[in-house]
Amino acid sequence: MSTRLGPLALGRSATVAARQSGTRAIRYGIRSSAMAKSSTSYQKLADELREIDSLQGISSILSWDELVVMKPKSAESRAAQKSALASVLHQRMTSKALGDLIASAEREVDALDAFEKASVRDARRQYDRKIKLPAELAKTEARLGSEGYQAWAKAKESGDYAVFKPFLESIVRLRQEEAAAVAPDEMSYDFQIDKFERGMTAPRLKEIFDELKPGLVDLIKEVSTATPLEIHHHLRGAEGGATFDPEVQASLCEDVMRKLGFDGILSRSLHPFTGGTAQDVRITTRYDPSDFISGVAGLVHETGHALYEENRPCGPQLGLPVSSALSMGIHESMSLLFERMVGQSEEFWEYFQPLVEEKFEHMKGVPASAYYDAINQVKSSNLIRVDADELTYPLHIVIRFELEQGLFDGTITCDDLPERWNELYEKYLGLKVPNDKEGVLQDVHWGSLAFGYFPSYSLGAMYACQFFAEAERAIPRLRGQIREGNFEPLRAWLTENIHSKGSLYPSADELCEAVTGKKLDPKIYLEFLREKYRKLYKIQ
Amino acid sequence: MSTRLGPLALGRSATVAARQSGTRAIRYGIRSSAMAKSSTSYQKLADELREIDSLQGISSILSWDELVVMKPKSAESRAAQKSALASVLHQRMTSKALGDLIASAEREVDALDAFEKASVRDARRQYDRKIKLPAELAKTEARLGSEGYQAWAKAKESGDYAVFKPFLESIVRLRQEEAAAVAPDEMSYDFQIDKFERGMTAPRLKEIFDELKPGLVDLIKEVSTATPLEIHHHLRGAEGGATFDPEVQASLCEDVMRKLGFDGILSRSLHPFTGGTAQDVRITTRYDPSDFISGVAGLVHETGHALYEENRPCGPQLGLPVSSALSMGIHESMSLLFERMVGQSEEFWEYFQPLVEEKFEHMKGVPASAYYDAINQVKSSNLIRVDADELTYPLHIVIRFELEQGLFDGTITCDDLPERWNELYEKYLGLKVPNDKEGVLQDVHWGSLAFGYFPSYSLGAMYACQFFAEAERAIPRLRGQIREGNFEPLRAWLTENIHSKGSLYPSADELCEAVTGKKLDPKIYLEFLREKYRKLYKIQ
Repeated sequence: MSTRLGPLALGRSATVAARQSGTRAIRYGIRSSAMAKSSTSYQKLADELREIDSLQGISSILSWDELVVMKPKSAESRAAQKSALASVLHQRMTSKALGDLIASAEREVDALDAFEKASVRDARRQYDRKIKLPAELAKTEARLGSEGYQAWAKAKESGDYAVFKPFLESIVRLRQEEAAAVAPDEMSYDFQIDKFERGMTAPRLKEIFDELKPGLVDLIKEVSTATPLEIHHHLRGAEGGATFDPEVQASLCEDVMRKLGFDGILSRSLHPFTGGTAQDVRITTRYDPSDFISGVAGLVHETGHALYEENRPCGPQLGLPVSSALSMGIHESMSLLFERMVGQSEEFWEYFQPLVEEKFEHMKGVPASAYYDAINQVKSSNLIRVDADELTYPLHIVIRFELEQGLFDGTITCDDLPERWNELYEKYLGLKVPNDKEGVLQDVHWGSLAFGYFPSYSLGAMYACQFFAEAERAIPRLRGQIREGNFEPLRAWLTENIHSKGSLYPSADELCEAVTGKKLDPKIYLEFLREKYRKLYKIQ
Repeated sequence: MSTRLGPLALGRSATVAARQSGTRAIRYGIRSSAMAKSSTSYQKLADELREIDSLQGISSILSWDELVVMKPKSAESRAAQKSALASVLHQRMTSKALGDLIASAEREVDALDAFEKASVRDARRQYDRKIKLPAELAKTEARLGSEGYQAWAKAKESGDYAVFKPFLESIVRLRQEEAAAVAPDEMSYDFQIDKFERGMTAPRLKEIFDELKPGLVDLIKEVSTATPLEIHHHLRGAEGGATFDPEVQASLCEDVMRKLGFDGILSRSLHPFTGGTAQDVRITTRYDPSDFISGVAGLVHETGHALYEENRPCGPQLGLPVSSALSMGIHESMSLLFERMVGQSEEFWEYFQPLVEEKFEHMKGVPASAYYDAINQVKSSNLIRVDADELTYPLHIVIRFELEQGLFDGTITCDDLPERWNELYEKYLGLKVPNDKEGVLQDVHWGSLAFGYFPSYSLGAMYACQFFAEAERAIPRLRGQIREGNFEPLRAWLTENIHSKGSLYPSADELCEAVTGKKLDPKIYLEFLREKYRKLYKIQ
């Protein structure tokens, strides 16, 4: 509440034009594009959902700003802003008015097309989940969200699991009670998984991971006994001694990004991420002065997310549930398809090698194959998930999945957890965990109340591989096009088959079947890895 | 409405920490600082006002983003976001609940301190103005805000006043009807002025400008017949041929800004402005490759605004009406005090000249006096307000004030306006207006529905001068300190006497009296200008 003066009003060449621009632009706003067929009830629901989506979009812009622009000293006021907006959103998303609009639209659902039906379906799903959560549990969740994170951070800092354990117990209990209240017919761990990976269940995950696990374990053994790759000294990072001016890296990344077909906003942040909204997608990466390849890899990964963000259903579907990302795994598949299938390919570096030479004098004469080796080398014995390579990463995930499953079905207690963690690291990765800091305390997720989140990372890698294999069938010259720097056919194929489908299908497996003819098949992924790494490491 | 994944959730090193950070930070949030004395009713009102302020803060961040970061292609979705937020804000600011909270706090007003009383007073003022506006007028305002601007832009483009005239007539009528509905006891032009300059009236403005006008007209005549200044060729802008790398200008401006005592965010935008919120103040400037002084001047001006923004009442007053800017004129006084009294002084350039030499090789040996001459030279015969210098600017304002007054008291019609405009330019500035584009159509304000806005610019210049004179009395070595680059005593004096008072006083004149012992006195300003320009132009 204030007579706060608009920003332009304070300007040196002050005008009042800015005050009006919102009003002017709204006349051409997205509202008018919603004039499709479909029922009146649906249109009323869509209007409300779009307005809620706009408010959520504001929240996304604030988050981007917080990580890219805002100074730490403004954290308190930003927290107050986010809290005020969250409370407005909560009220809107749980209002009786919204419930009535959904019910009316459901009564006229036969008049709707498939995309509209999907929006009504997901509006109902989200609304019910919100209103079924008892107020008492919501309070506990808010409290534990704060206390659990702090206890985890403190425990990790000191390496003392005992500091975290009582909070972890409360968090598991909270998540079980939440599932019992909101989805009493579901297994409580399935309910957690479904938050991030809708339609996915623990039994289906077990089926997938059981197929993946032995193949991976064997392949990692093969690679670990093969002759290590010779990495070009300029590509050995800090150890190699070469430096790459971050400003020049930024200009290289800007060029790569546009070439891949994204022309949004690229900034820097501590960790690369994709933010903003469907019509205002923003990505970030970071530049390590001793390793330009990691900056490019981050950029390519985020570009994959960005293309998914901006190419989901638009027009009359814009801002409606069907235009949301289908799942965390599908989002990750879109980034990993670019990062691994494209950015870690030899063809990619054959195309970009001359550009790298142009930007960095000392890279003259380094062949594309050297880039390929550097970006794909398997680094053995890494205890930390976030630093793991393509080959070992899924086993870090399998371990977490098996532990979470045990915690939720009661076969593992929080007392056992560190020991069981260490056993699995020895069993699957042959690694001895020296302490809990590098073991059970390494990830932020559990302290942040997130269970069932880890599997999506590896599901993404497998979907990426299966989608890319299908794209290669559909676009016979795909690899040749990548070598020529022509990424448009791939982008168009992804948009047509995946991006533009949004949340039309109720699960990633159903999307996968529509695109590739079958559900997720880990054999495709295993076969890809075997072929790639046996060739790279010259294994017979 | 969506299962939109949080930005970090999409990140390459994805964590879920970001989702929780808001929740964590709120525990230390500004809410707890509100535990002052005062009544319970007041605290409830304050809580609601702070939440509204947080939502308004979001709107400020979005505006900054729009002018600094956002791509034009995102304009539609941003318009939808702003519209959604505006409608939430309107609902909150006109709610019966807020009205009840204000009424309760008013009943216990005797228990409050002066700052709290001011917040209740201004909450009432703002609430009443909003709820008294008939819905029909609010609709007309929204429509004319769009159509009026467009008609003005079209008229300016073609130089055809007739295109704008019917809209201008509607806008004047709208503003008269608004005043009649909301403040029936006030003169309708006074009501317009009061929106930007609370407590100010047309008769008081007339008194001030009548004192200023003849003195200025005479002084401009003196200067225009004096020998023009010799400007160093490197300081002649495009005409001089010297260039100044914008990157280096940005680094110079960053240094100057920190030296002046502001350590917020500095960016670039088309027009310099100050944005963000009290705890997250952001300024911008622009860099002309042929003229680094204009970039520095913009920076110094915005720094003055920024220091006012971040040093207004904080602690328990933060986010409440008393922490708002007192008026547009006072805001402008804080920027102009820095721009003109500090940044256009010889002492300022004596201090910064070595830094300029360090940044720009070719400025070696150019004395501080050359900067002083360049930044203060009077450019005769400028028809355009925004390009006018310190000496002629107030007459551009006086002309607009007299015309607005005439439009509202009926002595001037929209038919007469261009002719009357041209007469006054001839009378006060001795200038012939060749066409309406450079005449009556030059400013965006009227097409944007803003009447009573212009006077604040010149009030700001006069307050700045009177405040600075008082600061010189209070800090005897002030000019010496500026020469030494010690801006802290001035900053501290401004914060103690002006910034930290926020909207405690109900008018700028009352603040001025509290600070300087008397209301705004244009004689002080005139005397300052006479002394400065007679010395600069060696007039006896």
